[in-house]
Amino acid sequence: MATHLTGRTVRVLIGPEPKNHVTRDMPEVKVGLEGFVGDRHSGLTRRADVRTPWFPKGTTVRNTRQVSIVSTEELALIAEALGLPEVMAAWLGANLELAGVARLTQLPPGTRLFFPDDATLVVDGENEPCRQAGRALEAHHPERAGLSSRFVKAAHHRRGLVGWVERPGVIRAGDKVKVMLPPAVTYSLPGETGSAGPET
Amino acid sequence: MATHLTGRTVRVLIGPEPKNHVTRDMPEVKVGLEGFVGDRHSGLTRRADVRTPWFPKGTTVRNTRQVSIVSTEELALIAEALGLPEVMAAWLGANLELAGVARLTQLPPGTRLFFPDDATLVVDGENEPCRQAGRALEAHHPERAGLSSRFVKAAHHRRGLVGWVERPGVIRAGDKVKVMLPPAVTYSLPGETGSAGPET
Repeated sequence: MATHLTGRTVRVLIGPEPKNHVTRDMPEVKVGLEGFVGDRHSGLTRRADVRTPWFPKGTTVRNTRQVSIVSTEELALIAEALGLPEVMAAWLGANLELAGVARLTQLPPGTRLFFPDDATLVVDGENEPCRQAGRALEAHHPERAGLSSRFVKAAHHRRGLVGWVERPGVIRAGDKVKVMLPPAVTYSLPGETGSAGPET
Repeated sequence: MATHLTGRTVRVLIGPEPKNHVTRDMPEVKVGLEGFVGDRHSGLTRRADVRTPWFPKGTTVRNTRQVSIVSTEELALIAEALGLPEVMAAWLGANLELAGVARLTQLPPGTRLFFPDDATLVVDGENEPCRQAGRALEAHHPERAGLSSRFVKAAHHRRGLVGWVERPGVIRAGDKVKVMLPPAVTYSLPGETGSAGPET
């Protein structure tokens, strides 16, 4: 297997409530093709929203955002940038916190994460920081005004990834994770010499 | 929408038979979340095989290879390399032939292809040339010995992509297609300075 990196699973989390966004640490989570069983983001399909502005709002599309993944090291960088003692994965509604995978948020789409008890996740892409997650931080630090908007900047390229389940299984806190990058490709737009990303 | 490229749909094809691999041009194809309706590669899941050697053979996994996509320009390059007048998309069991998208095979995983009547496909990755497709060429040119093994080299980085359906709809021959690349990311392995792909 073309594995490059390994890390470890620090936390597995489930957010069962669609309304008040309470996310809890679990010793283990059952993983199906629809996502983390019992989590509010699970489902084979989802409704298009602000995260997928290229689809009309409400359109039923494949759910590529079943799971939110953050890294211990990047959470520490966000905390440092905001002057907070720590930022908890649960505050951001994450489902997985991994340690030991350098620059987790920059893993490209198509990266595969293999867990020992069969579960395999595929990276859809970076999870753009939003003010909603920032407000969760603010709820834990009401003494700090403006935290929600400062979060968006502090978490840029550090807020982790979203992805979907390729193979069912179980993920446990403490699990080793193997990371397989897709083949490196550099797509140059016609007439350009460097690589390019989307206009924003 | 962060669209970069446009192309056009030259052919839409369906291969209904699992055994003899007859693939036929269609004026239009209905596209569901399971793939191209009536095609032998459709399904929400598939069994792991030689294409996904990181899973035990036969494991049920998400089907990320619902659709095979080739380009008119790359088929012409393969034909030229093999000294053939042409290589037909149907011979390779492709489901879509697009024209006007430069270096189609190098589009990165996570690239989205938008069709006018709602259907949206996501690129899983390059479709590695295999001798089975080469043997289909040989069947059309029995006078040319060794075509199947020469095909694998001639089709390297030109054999197109595989992908899956993100949004259902209809795809018609003649449809315009809009191509949206994912944000450009260069993931450097810890301790390296350049970008890296998997070991092979």
